[in-house]
Amino acid sequence: RIMRPDDANIAGNVHGGTILKMIEEAGAIISTRHCNSQAGEPCVAALARVERTDFLSPMCIGEVANVSAEITYTSRHSVEVQVNVMSENILTGAKKVTNKATLWYVPLSLKNVNKVLEVPPIQYARKEQEDEGKKRYEEQKLDRLETKQRNGDVILPVINPEPHTVGYSQSSLIHLVGPSDCTLLGFVHGGVTMKLMDEVAGIVAARHCKTNIVTASVDAINFHEKIKKGCVITVSGRMTFTSNKSMEIEVFVDADPFVDEPRERYRAVSAFFTYVSLSKEGKPLPVPQLLTETEDEKRRFEEGKGRYLQTKAKRQAQMQQSAQ
Amino acid sequence: RIMRPDDANIAGNVHGGTILKMIEEAGAIISTRHCNSQAGEPCVAALARVERTDFLSPMCIGEVANVSAEITYTSRHSVEVQVNVMSENILTGAKKVTNKATLWYVPLSLKNVNKVLEVPPIQYARKEQEDEGKKRYEEQKLDRLETKQRNGDVILPVINPEPHTVGYSQSSLIHLVGPSDCTLLGFVHGGVTMKLMDEVAGIVAARHCKTNIVTASVDAINFHEKIKKGCVITVSGRMTFTSNKSMEIEVFVDADPFVDEPRERYRAVSAFFTYVSLSKEGKPLPVPQLLTETEDEKRRFEEGKGRYLQTKAKRQAQMQQSAQ
Amino acid sequence: RIMRPDDANIAGNVHGGTILKMIEEAGAIISTRHCNSQAGEPCVAALARVERTDFLSPMCIGEVANVSAEITYTSRHSVEVQVNVMSENILTGAKKVTNKATLWYVPLSLKNVNKVLEVPPIQYARKEQEDEGKKRYEEQKLDRLETKQRNGDVILPVINPEPHTVGYSQSSLIHLVGPSDCTLLGFVHGGVTMKLMDEVAGIVAARHCKTNIVTASVDAINFHEKIKKGCVITVSGRMTFTSNKSMEIEVFVDADPFVDEPRERYRAVSAFFTYVSLSKEGKPLPVPQLLTETEDEKRRFEEGKGRYLQTKAKRQAQMQQSAQ
Repeated sequence: RIMRPDDANIAGNVHGGTILKMIEEAGAIISTRHCNSQAGEPCVAALARVERTDFLSPMCIGEVANVSAEITYTSRHSVEVQVNVMSENILTGAKKVTNKATLWYVPLSLKNVNKVLEVPPIQYARKEQEDEGKKRYEEQKLDRLETKQRNGDVILPVINPEPHTVGYSQSSLIHLVGPSDCTLLGFVHGGVTMKLMDEVAGIVAARHCKTNIVTASVDAINFHEKIKKGCVITVSGRMTFTSNKSMEIEVFVDADPFVDEPRERYRAVSAFFTYVSLSKEGKPLPVPQLLTETEDEKRRFEEGKGRYLQTKAKRQAQMQQSAQ
Repeated sequence: RIMRPDDANIAGNVHGGTILKMIEEAGAIISTRHCNSQAGEPCVAALARVERTDFLSPMCIGEVANVSAEITYTSRHSVEVQVNVMSENILTGAKKVTNKATLWYVPLSLKNVNKVLEVPPIQYARKEQEDEGKKRYEEQKLDRLETKQRNGDVILPVINPEPHTVGYSQSSLIHLVGPSDCTLLGFVHGGVTMKLMDEVAGIVAARHCKTNIVTASVDAINFHEKIKKGCVITVSGRMTFTSNKSMEIEVFVDADPFVDEPRERYRAVSAFFTYVSLSKEGKPLPVPQLLTETEDEKRRFEEGKGRYLQTKAKRQAQMQQSAQ
Repeated sequence: RIMRPDDANIAGNVHGGTILKMIEEAGAIISTRHCNSQAGEPCVAALARVERTDFLSPMCIGEVANVSAEITYTSRHSVEVQVNVMSENILTGAKKVTNKATLWYVPLSLKNVNKVLEVPPIQYARKEQEDEGKKRYEEQKLDRLETKQRNGDVILPVINPEPHTVGYSQSSLIHLVGPSDCTLLGFVHGGVTMKLMDEVAGIVAARHCKTNIVTASVDAINFHEKIKKGCVITVSGRMTFTSNKSMEIEVFVDADPFVDEPRERYRAVSAFFTYVSLSKEGKPLPVPQLLTETEDEKRRFEEGKGRYLQTKAKRQAQMQQSAQ
């Protein structure tokens, strides 16, 4: 579809969150279609995880987004979907890859939302494809378990924070979940959640460096808990790490089923977003260093540095590989 | 994309206007892409006309709309696009044709919005395709001239109208044109206008028969005048004709460039919408007869009857043809 | 959240209606949460009244709105909430108070929408707070009764009105209530109604003075009647008074439960909006005087003048108080 002014920031760059939302909708359609392709209990595919994704080039207002999706692996209870987004300037015909993402879905029964159904297996062209898929499946399963433990953290408000400290840029928004945010099962679309997360992360980044910022990448996101219609969700973000030219922001989503539900507020999702600051000509700008004050902040900064160096090393390895 | 609660009425049927908007966006993308496919002045394709279209089966919340578009004819300054919409139930896999539409676009220069550029010719597989396209082109050109003359009409308010008279159900809405309604040239997308027209027509129909109603067809719509960002548009509708099971509603769109413009209010578009009333089981219900009072109302009723009988005759001819 | 192009007029000032909608959503969340904080029948807080609110400084596209809400008084069946909106320019860090509002909510049972539940009492830090809250409660109760009687008025259409008369700028819009407009109980959010009211009032003001206009204040609004999903609402506005630099517009909301309901059209809300006209540099411009023609128009003009002088006197008293 054509990118509109509301999809973009004031510099005309389309929000990463808008793109994530389109990706998730494409993934949900193709995996729901696949899981219902054999006679059996009708189901809706629910997003369980999005792998780390890089935004390779910014998309602008007036460009057309072409989204294509393909099922690349099926386990007994989950579907792996790869989604590619191309931006097309229909005036010049120029096309660019905006990003590629890998998503995992699980089929939930339409009659009983707590029942996970079986996934019809796909045919692989080559045996290696199946083996590689299985490897990816095992890896993500492990990672999901790990993040489940990390989820206890909260963001406390800070009064009169100094510039460039963590407290200075941390932000949160609340959103009342309406019918258009939800699937047929009455649960929030993963894409809607990711769009809100990107919105908060973008505010944190802009508050920190006071310039035009864009989403550079999103780390793997695990959706441990569903969020139901009528909940209030609180999306909070805080900066964890800065390199010379990038910022890492941790975002939490908490759901508050405050009507009709005997349940406490709970952590539904958390993720790391990386932003860069751009000049008016679209060049990366230096980022002010994050000032850490508490022990926890220092620890998170080091952890962020670890993720940053690991990603950098991986990218260099890939570049050397493709140069060979 | 997946149909959401906001796209549909309370009975779960997707608004005809939502479908018209998707159709127009697909047409605008393919024709803008085509008109910029050769080096030359960059341009944006603007909607000039939509041919009569029938809504063959209602689409429901949760279904996926598949929209495909193809360029079928080019004249020197215009492009004919055919768009098909299929609704797909991703739970059962069932697909149905929702409607087929033919749209005409003209390329306007990005630098000078009043300049119509030349259209690169397409290649035809067979000579007959070009001849048939040319015939359609000449027919629509003639029809456009005719409707241009009919455009002087206005809808006058009626105080304390009787049930089932024209004044009883006539309705109008105003809308302030915002940035998301507009193309790169700062003019309202034809699809946005059609969506508002369908909204008003639907309210007229529902006021008349107080039941669940759905769009059955839309007569050819000509876009004689562009509408600019910041205008207020008034969309008004009145019932012109009822058969046993259908209602015809005439809709006018007037633009009011009230800020920053030395121009008077003007008629931008007008069209006829046909609605049917459905029971809870989706069966057509009888429609209360329209009570005409003035001479003008009686004349419009007869004209509407003419259109109704003509369409009926055409459909029967087609059915006989396809039965042979 | 960040203000987007669609939230603002063409001069970049955020619509008062967008701000009112955010305020109401915050109030609804905090009061629903409070009313469900003790074991008992689940409920949703419905907006009963908004006190007069002034828009102290306009908000612009790209700014972040910070909304904070606090419960300040509880009676047996109602909750008073105070909401503050700050606009923050995240590039410069500058923050300004946009407005402060006081809202009253009543808890309606989720099982039986006509049953008003009891509100858990809040703890006051000081006894005076409770006494002052009680005083505010009694005052608004009285005012609600008064406006209930005033609600019979209707706006009649005028044909070929002269510039700057009441008929010249009066406007109305219709809106079909969709699922996203509604709470869990299936009734329109007060904030959605206020946004539509501000939209109509803004069009009336712009038609009168043909310049860029912004909302300056909104008088107390009482929500006497709920509006249900599937209704058509008609929002109409007419100018009642002009001072040298401001315009007062009266807005009515009528609900038409035209499907599936045995009820006649009824008046749901009415309110007075005050607008000012701004130059491109943001300075207040003189406003053309309203030409009153009928006795009713002259009476309403005098009443408007009374409200204007009263507000002016109150403001001067407050300024003297704070200067001491």
